[in-house]
Amino acid sequence: MQHIISVLVENKFGVLAHIAGLFSSRGFNIDSLTVGETQDPTVSRMTIVVTGDDRTLEQVEKQLNKLIDVIKVQDLTQEKHVERELILIKINCTPQTRSEIIQIANIFNARIVDFTRKAIVVELVGSQDKITAFIDLVKVFGIRELSRTGRIAILRGE
Amino acid sequence: MQHIISVLVENKFGVLAHIAGLFSSRGFNIDSLTVGETQDPTVSRMTIVVTGDDRTLEQVEKQLNKLIDVIKVQDLTQEKHVERELILIKINCTPQTRSEIIQIANIFNARIVDFTRKAIVVELVGSQDKITAFIDLVKVFGIRELSRTGRIAILRGE
Repeated sequence: MQHIISVLVENKFGVLAHIAGLFSSRGFNIDSLTVGETQDPTVSRMTIVVTGDDRTLEQVEKQLNKLIDVIKVQDLTQEKHVERELILIKINCTPQTRSEIIQIANIFNARIVDFTRKAIVVELVGSQDKITAFIDLVKVFGIRELSRTGRIAILRGE
Repeated sequence: MQHIISVLVENKFGVLAHIAGLFSSRGFNIDSLTVGETQDPTVSRMTIVVTGDDRTLEQVEKQLNKLIDVIKVQDLTQEKHVERELILIKINCTPQTRSEIIQIANIFNARIVDFTRKAIVVELVGSQDKITAFIDLVKVFGIRELSRTGRIAILRGE
């Protein structure tokens, strides 16, 4: 099962390597991972999407909680939350396909951020489903480059 | 100096931990890191923002290039590129401050993705400058939670 884990850590040297190592030594493949500062620059938030069985994951969470640089571990999978991902995608285009690509981008509320005679760069934010649907749609034109952030999440409510 | 490095890697077990370890063992603090699949599911792209001196970074890049699971390393800092980051931010609100927060969100082209009587969750995409400006503006209302993806980048042109 896929889990989305939010880990608050001290913004220190080597913490990322340590935590990534913990997951991989337990046989979890990390589907996506993002890490960045929070409103407090001494604290970073890691959002990790992993696939694996629930029991092993529970053990990893326990181990994470024992680390001195880990402030809080939350498995958001079962909680009500908002999930988003950002991608930048460079799509091949010709004078013939250009307007179709722009149309698709508009339908998805995507923004065109760069444009040449042969390629369009699109910025898109959404849930995993939306992102996947978009990528599947534009695949036929040829994808030159794709950069994605991996998912972040925030709890709904107060 | 701050660098933005794009690394294409085989989507394998332990690669992330290995690469994160390489940076931290050389004394680089990772400002942000994202990793996710590309259009080819066997290949992932890591985007790493690090601060450090140019010479040491060059050595790290050389070491990265030697790793069997690393396909390509690119320092985008000097190239023409588009950079974006995504944040989800939960801001305190009261009936008095609500419309001001919504106004600020509109000016920044941000989207409101959750809403209760006491808090608003906003989704915002932009360059680092834009994100920082937004966070500074809404700080006065009180930030409850902030989740950010870290930057991704794509080269301009063809």
